[in-house]
Amino acid sequence: MAEPPGPVRVIEETPAYWRVVFDYPPFNILDATIFQGLQDLLARMDASPSLRVVAFESANPEFYLAHFDLTGKTGNITTAVGPSGLPILTDTFVRLTRSPVVSIAKIRGCVRGASSEFVLACDMRFASRENTRLGQPEVGVGVHPGGGSTERLPHLVGRGRALEIVLGANDFDGDTAERYGYVNHALPDSELDAFVDALARRIGSFDRRAIAAAKHLINQVSLPPAGRLLDGLNSFQTALTWTEAQQRIQTLLEHGLQREIDFEKRWPALLGELFET
Amino acid sequence: MAEPPGPVRVIEETPAYWRVVFDYPPFNILDATIFQGLQDLLARMDASPSLRVVAFESANPEFYLAHFDLTGKTGNITTAVGPSGLPILTDTFVRLTRSPVVSIAKIRGCVRGASSEFVLACDMRFASRENTRLGQPEVGVGVHPGGGSTERLPHLVGRGRALEIVLGANDFDGDTAERYGYVNHALPDSELDAFVDALARRIGSFDRRAIAAAKHLINQVSLPPAGRLLDGLNSFQTALTWTEAQQRIQTLLEHGLQREIDFEKRWPALLGELFET
Amino acid sequence: MAEPPGPVRVIEETPAYWRVVFDYPPFNILDATIFQGLQDLLARMDASPSLRVVAFESANPEFYLAHFDLTGKTGNITTAVGPSGLPILTDTFVRLTRSPVVSIAKIRGCVRGASSEFVLACDMRFASRENTRLGQPEVGVGVHPGGGSTERLPHLVGRGRALEIVLGANDFDGDTAERYGYVNHALPDSELDAFVDALARRIGSFDRRAIAAAKHLINQVSLPPAGRLLDGLNSFQTALTWTEAQQRIQTLLEHGLQREIDFEKRWPALLGELFET
Repeated sequence: MAEPPGPVRVIEETPAYWRVVFDYPPFNILDATIFQGLQDLLARMDASPSLRVVAFESANPEFYLAHFDLTGKTGNITTAVGPSGLPILTDTFVRLTRSPVVSIAKIRGCVRGASSEFVLACDMRFASRENTRLGQPEVGVGVHPGGGSTERLPHLVGRGRALEIVLGANDFDGDTAERYGYVNHALPDSELDAFVDALARRIGSFDRRAIAAAKHLINQVSLPPAGRLLDGLNSFQTALTWTEAQQRIQTLLEHGLQREIDFEKRWPALLGELFET
Repeated sequence: MAEPPGPVRVIEETPAYWRVVFDYPPFNILDATIFQGLQDLLARMDASPSLRVVAFESANPEFYLAHFDLTGKTGNITTAVGPSGLPILTDTFVRLTRSPVVSIAKIRGCVRGASSEFVLACDMRFASRENTRLGQPEVGVGVHPGGGSTERLPHLVGRGRALEIVLGANDFDGDTAERYGYVNHALPDSELDAFVDALARRIGSFDRRAIAAAKHLINQVSLPPAGRLLDGLNSFQTALTWTEAQQRIQTLLEHGLQREIDFEKRWPALLGELFET
Repeated sequence: MAEPPGPVRVIEETPAYWRVVFDYPPFNILDATIFQGLQDLLARMDASPSLRVVAFESANPEFYLAHFDLTGKTGNITTAVGPSGLPILTDTFVRLTRSPVVSIAKIRGCVRGASSEFVLACDMRFASRENTRLGQPEVGVGVHPGGGSTERLPHLVGRGRALEIVLGANDFDGDTAERYGYVNHALPDSELDAFVDALARRIGSFDRRAIAAAKHLINQVSLPPAGRLLDGLNSFQTALTWTEAQQRIQTLLEHGLQREIDFEKRWPALLGELFET
């Protein structure tokens, strides 16, 4: 099916298996436009009874989804409420986890902050061994994660590694992310596409009811309660108003965040040295 | 002690340490006969105050326990109730987890579906690096796991890997199973026997009360509630009645499941291609 | 800042980052003196609003903290109550986990029993690849862990590996501890100091409120309830009165525990052979 270009583009490989491509130059920044694309996608998934699996990838090999927008383009995603009754940001991630459709993140490039929380809300995560920079740098920006990682990471990687990821606020490469359990598996970049495609087609051949029932049972013992996710989001909203946070965001933007590709690629590593303390 | 041959054979290495050997040709299919053997074993364990540890192995290096019988030989194991008040299938696994006696699965060969759920109910799992095919292929058969893996795997390997194991429905080798936390440790096949034997004899030398108290404390924070396990079993029972599931089972039996060794060894890998969709 | 020598010595690297050095010859045995040092440290941490992170290390490369004292020098640490309302042993570990200050264990040498439980109460654990002997040998001494490992390990390493660690009662080296998730990461010994120092200085440069809020959110979904920890401690107290436990402790002391360095280094490996059964 021909599909118009757009920031969240759907390619219907088969009626059971869609690829979803993030294509939002220059860096696939996670802003209100991307969230609208994801909301549209979720509505379309809900209306597609033949669909079994969606695999998310990026058109830009250097940026999967860079991070939450810090220039004011996030619209009302933390205040307006989505179909689940939760704020759009949380609603988007929660509906992905609860959907009868399986979601796979195929990761290449930079994935930080709320974008890391997007892949944590996917059912599975596979990453390029050579080309993955995954992390939660929020604490180094003076705030903290608000999109579910403080709730999801401890059950995925254990409390110690969750604290290292969140409080260390640095990038993790593919191999470390696999060893920590942050992603399912890191593969050589040249094998990643074929691996995810084969897994998605395989799941696409299975009975939808069986998939949905199995995922539902696993969800019962593995999803964080919505109240916990809201606590995290509310605390994040408060943190955004702190003077220290505003100053750090300002400094990052002045240094080139969301403008200069070289800075955009490596800014988390610099968080320990960039600010006067 | 001389022990009559049988499908679940006990070898009393010492009063504190028993080996239990699955020996049920041709493939160690998990049916009512094996469950009766396990129920008898549990009763005997309960009546043996000197016992500290049982290690489960297979007489057939290619099949540890193949999988749940799909030809109607499962008797009343999902309907009749065992000593715990739970259906025999669940009762067998739950009593193993709650027993003051330590259980170790020493894995060689194929272990799929309910057999994977048996090893997940053991206290520890050690696997042959070269010779392990472990998985939950149920979703590829049109049903889903019903013996506890949807409840146990998320806490063992995290939600992402649990979903990959259950929804991908494929085999995992020893190294991947170790990396995912599906087994404790994968060892070179030539070292597996000595490793498990040394560990079992060591535990066998410890005080039974100390073992029981420690396992009890860990159980308090790590066992799934019985109600969750029953939800999974009930949902599985319903799934078995679906037309799609019945057709997939029929197709698998026609292709040689439970009859032809070559098909029996590699059928999960074929689940993506075997059925018309 | 010059600091008087002592068993728990604080080195204020910066107002935001302190190193804490265990220096209590001959083996850094965990007794009432060390707990008093930790209680004093916690009070000082609570009174230091500029502090972000403490990193714990040992002055003795062969012993990080050997283990709980078995010669009667533990004072009232399991009976007297600390500021949290819990017994001193539990209070010390619980307050470390709840503190807004980040704690890092930099592990070299032997760390067993209650000392392992100390590092499990730290926010992160980094270990020397060549020089780490970490474990919970209590069950081999006829008792069981009482300082939180039976509650913390299952969520960190999964039930199967927690049972192996606690019931196997043996040492784990750095690589295995990393693979199991028992420590965050094992590094070559020559890189360990620089790695931890860089991470601590980095976290030390972050906003204290952001750190505290992030850790608080993670704690909500990852800390065991105090009631569970008390169950473990009470059960441990009972176990200490068992004749079998008293005999095993006596045998260990006679063989050189807490006296002879060679025995002190390798006693857990000998637990399977030392006692008449």
